[in-house]
Amino acid sequence: MAMLITNVLGSFVIDGKGTIIDSIPFRTAEDFLTKNKAELKLEKKHHLVPPTGEEKLRAMSQFCTKEYFQRFYEQNMALTKQGIREAVHEDQLIIQAIANLNELDKTVNLLSKRLREWYSLYLPELAESVADQQKYAELLTSKTRNELMKEIQQQETMGAELKPFHLNEISLLGKEVLSLCELRKAHEQYLQSIMKEYCPNLLELAGTTIGAKLLEHSKGLKRLALLPASTIQLLGAEKALFRHLKSGSRSPKYGLIFQHPLIQKAERQNKGKAARALADKLSLCARIDYFKGEFRANIFQKELEGRFL
Amino acid sequence: MAMLITNVLGSFVIDGKGTIIDSIPFRTAEDFLTKNKAELKLEKKHHLVPPTGEEKLRAMSQFCTKEYFQRFYEQNMALTKQGIREAVHEDQLIIQAIANLNELDKTVNLLSKRLREWYSLYLPELAESVADQQKYAELLTSKTRNELMKEIQQQETMGAELKPFHLNEISLLGKEVLSLCELRKAHEQYLQSIMKEYCPNLLELAGTTIGAKLLEHSKGLKRLALLPASTIQLLGAEKALFRHLKSGSRSPKYGLIFQHPLIQKAERQNKGKAARALADKLSLCARIDYFKGEFRANIFQKELEGRFL
Repeated sequence: MAMLITNVLGSFVIDGKGTIIDSIPFRTAEDFLTKNKAELKLEKKHHLVPPTGEEKLRAMSQFCTKEYFQRFYEQNMALTKQGIREAVHEDQLIIQAIANLNELDKTVNLLSKRLREWYSLYLPELAESVADQQKYAELLTSKTRNELMKEIQQQETMGAELKPFHLNEISLLGKEVLSLCELRKAHEQYLQSIMKEYCPNLLELAGTTIGAKLLEHSKGLKRLALLPASTIQLLGAEKALFRHLKSGSRSPKYGLIFQHPLIQKAERQNKGKAARALADKLSLCARIDYFKGEFRANIFQKELEGRFL
Repeated sequence: MAMLITNVLGSFVIDGKGTIIDSIPFRTAEDFLTKNKAELKLEKKHHLVPPTGEEKLRAMSQFCTKEYFQRFYEQNMALTKQGIREAVHEDQLIIQAIANLNELDKTVNLLSKRLREWYSLYLPELAESVADQQKYAELLTSKTRNELMKEIQQQETMGAELKPFHLNEISLLGKEVLSLCELRKAHEQYLQSIMKEYCPNLLELAGTTIGAKLLEHSKGLKRLALLPASTIQLLGAEKALFRHLKSGSRSPKYGLIFQHPLIQKAERQNKGKAARALADKLSLCARIDYFKGEFRANIFQKELEGRFL
């Protein structure tokens, strides 16, 4: 009795004695993914019925001959590659971008600290009166010392006289800091525009940075949508949570979402409650986004604002 | 009997009863620094002799009256500021530049790692075949995927199809990495050119990076010149040295100078000896440079090469 067997090599019709009597080989990974077509064709042609387990096993042994080894390897490889290729989507891109954003922050801080120390040899008064890193770099690269002293209303400076040769080097570093700041801004806009497509609800309620960090921590929208709201509430507070579980210290109230304006603005005794409610709605948003539901985040937002602000 | 007293306020001639009978007040910090002139003038005019300790004390009490307080404060401040201003010289600039060089290295590594991970979503094969960070960033920003695949002789890729919108973001990061590499190079050249002026012998024998690191570690050429050669040999190996002293493990043979080609190229059993000899000559170089001696580093270099290579 003939039967149908399909594997990565192709669709095969095998008779009762275990020899192949008809086949449609697969040339590319796409052929395997649309194997239904080939199977239907062969089924119609040979009027096949499903085989028993033992018959299947016997027929499979057919493919242990050497002539199939090489092709089996190649086909398998092609399928795996295709699988990997298709596994990349917005999740990965968002995760890379937000991770890079964090690293850029670190970098800007590191280089800005050096810039302040270096330029303070020339004009120490500026570092004191300008706290913002980007502003500091901007001032230093665009103005001369005399202009800067007017700006910060200083008559004289404790800084040394440096030759343009030395100042030039400092200003190169300043420009680098500025360009890192710009890259950071570009990344933020980029994140915002992918998230607007991919998870509009989460973006609206959580904001760019917190939304992306939630995705990074939960390793993608799918898993975020599957997490309970209480887990979302504590994402990023793992250390405090395990300390709580181990030593019985107080449990954390919030993780990444601590930065959210709703929690920042809530009164002290309401912060825990606000975090719970926010995590609840964020969880809903992630689920709506994952299952491509309609846009509801603005309603949630208003509801939360009404309760806690 | 009249006598002469000089402090930050000026040079004063005081008579036996402790009242001021003549004075040359100092208006600026420079006046104080050239106080000898004023003193000479007054000495000639009044034919003065040095006072005893008790007379001095009595005369000094003169300045406890309120009229001098404000001026004393101002003059002192101006002198301190001038002192700070003049304390800056090449040492500080070299230390800042080499410290920034190290930080740039860290930064380039951090961002390059992210760049590799990010771009590997698109063309994972490239990260494997190009090890150099700068080369990787150059290739990625200047060529399309198809060109790159030809370059690394790959027929097909496991990477996903990304839209230009996403690729653009990655290439922005790539450009940033390149500009950081360029800044690093500029700093290196800058270091080299100040060191050529400031410590030519040290530069010649140690090279830019090791020379600057030695200056950074010893906090300036003066202290480096005063250090014994054995300390220079172990600068940067403090951790291993104290472990040796505390727990009796083996003593370190070299610190920062380990990177020096002479030690790198020396045979295994000679490395310790070479480090000792090199540190010896480096110490000599630092002393020659500090006391502005003649250029001898090339002779030392040949001597060392003759002994160990």
